[in-house]
Amino acid sequence: MKLMRVGRPGQEKPAILDAEGKARDLSQHVADIGGAAISPEGLAKIAALDPRTLPELQVDRIGACVAGTGKFICIGLNFSDHAAETGATVPPEPVIFMKATSAICGPNDNVLIPRGSEKTDWEVELGVVIGKTAKYVSEAEAMDYVAGYCVSHDVSERGFQTERSGQWTKGKSCDTFGPIGPWLVTKDEIADPQNLGMWLKVNGETMQDGSSKTMVYGVAFVVSYLSQFMSLQPGDVISTGTPPGVGMGMKPPRYLKPGDVVELGIEGLGTQRQTFVADR
Amino acid sequence: MKLMRVGRPGQEKPAILDAEGKARDLSQHVADIGGAAISPEGLAKIAALDPRTLPELQVDRIGACVAGTGKFICIGLNFSDHAAETGATVPPEPVIFMKATSAICGPNDNVLIPRGSEKTDWEVELGVVIGKTAKYVSEAEAMDYVAGYCVSHDVSERGFQTERSGQWTKGKSCDTFGPIGPWLVTKDEIADPQNLGMWLKVNGETMQDGSSKTMVYGVAFVVSYLSQFMSLQPGDVISTGTPPGVGMGMKPPRYLKPGDVVELGIEGLGTQRQTFVADR
Repeated sequence: MKLMRVGRPGQEKPAILDAEGKARDLSQHVADIGGAAISPEGLAKIAALDPRTLPELQVDRIGACVAGTGKFICIGLNFSDHAAETGATVPPEPVIFMKATSAICGPNDNVLIPRGSEKTDWEVELGVVIGKTAKYVSEAEAMDYVAGYCVSHDVSERGFQTERSGQWTKGKSCDTFGPIGPWLVTKDEIADPQNLGMWLKVNGETMQDGSSKTMVYGVAFVVSYLSQFMSLQPGDVISTGTPPGVGMGMKPPRYLKPGDVVELGIEGLGTQRQTFVADR
Repeated sequence: MKLMRVGRPGQEKPAILDAEGKARDLSQHVADIGGAAISPEGLAKIAALDPRTLPELQVDRIGACVAGTGKFICIGLNFSDHAAETGATVPPEPVIFMKATSAICGPNDNVLIPRGSEKTDWEVELGVVIGKTAKYVSEAEAMDYVAGYCVSHDVSERGFQTERSGQWTKGKSCDTFGPIGPWLVTKDEIADPQNLGMWLKVNGETMQDGSSKTMVYGVAFVVSYLSQFMSLQPGDVISTGTPPGVGMGMKPPRYLKPGDVVELGIEGLGTQRQTFVADR
């Protein structure tokens, strides 16, 4: 299933994409796409519905594909070739950092280049959405706790991230730096999350063209690993790292400026398109 | 005012402490202590009530003093003498990191020492609770966005934080590593947040005995600073750093083990008391 949220910011309705690509209103059946609705039981209840019997929604805007995200956790340097381009080595265990949940926005919303930014950069990432509370789970059972996947754009301000006194969260958490969606694609639709093409273009020029198969720490490992340090809860989103081709890695580095258009997508998970604008 | 949340985890009722130290039920007037209830307008509405007219609540457990926290942001190395004891220098601008909001718990709840932990440490901190959305605010106007203060215990696993591949969040986000409360003390009750005694004892022995006056970056500066990087929202909590005396700084270092009791407090903001136990 492809689940989505349709409507103005803060007023999105839960919806499901039907076989013809139309958004069908789920709001008579679930409160939102998040929490109990994306638990195994909640997803089974949605799966039992016939989308054709649900009212069609006009899609003027798509919201973030998950509501009520409590944690937006990222894995750093998780593609060996991306680590190399940033001058780092693959870490012996996953690097974890957090993006502020207030950074989350819709997949096609404008992205705000923050005041003082000179190094706003792009990163296409595979997002993993948790559907069930996970604590101390093994890698073998980890996938039982995953509701599905989404495209995640881990927008990053490299100056804020690395030149403004330690800890990456400062360059990862700006408002609108976390477009997720268009859809939460349930895991049954993705045969192998470690074999998905991932791409990103800036103004039509391909910058990233990779695959989740070069991910160092795969989805099941990452879910298990994180659950050793903290409970993962329904609606939590894990952004699993980016393949090569970010602006910071270019010679000379290249960063986004107002008016730039970024398009990105992951095989089976849909596409995003953002115009970058100066924050007021 | 001293606002609090009373009851079992997930079932807390909002309450206000009356002049005699009794908890009075606010649940007929506000949904919870958080969001709109701690906005300037929400607090004015509560202030207009006569606590003696509200039902008294029996206090079997105190919950976290704020509900619905979207971001739990910490300032690292914000006391010059604490930076020195950890072998670090005071950074040229504040170090920001995130604790998972799932770490938040009540001020007297047991704290779980995570599996595999050998270096669980303590940190008494002044917590700042945001009452109004703040973005790009100046230091002069920053206090307008603060609802009040609380005691915050930034429990930290030093091995996870510093020896397990970069980024501190890994050692800061374990379940129960964020006791906050007992009260959200509204800012009108605290004449000067930069002159509050702060202390912490382990099994009755004083470990930290400092003051917020040795804080490098004060509350107003920190609120303004953070708001340059991300929107701060009602219910967000900022933990502003710890004075000297943490276990990591002792020679040899000293860490917490199951059965240890930690008591901590800040002048005017109340006290916390936690028993540390092994996580199952």
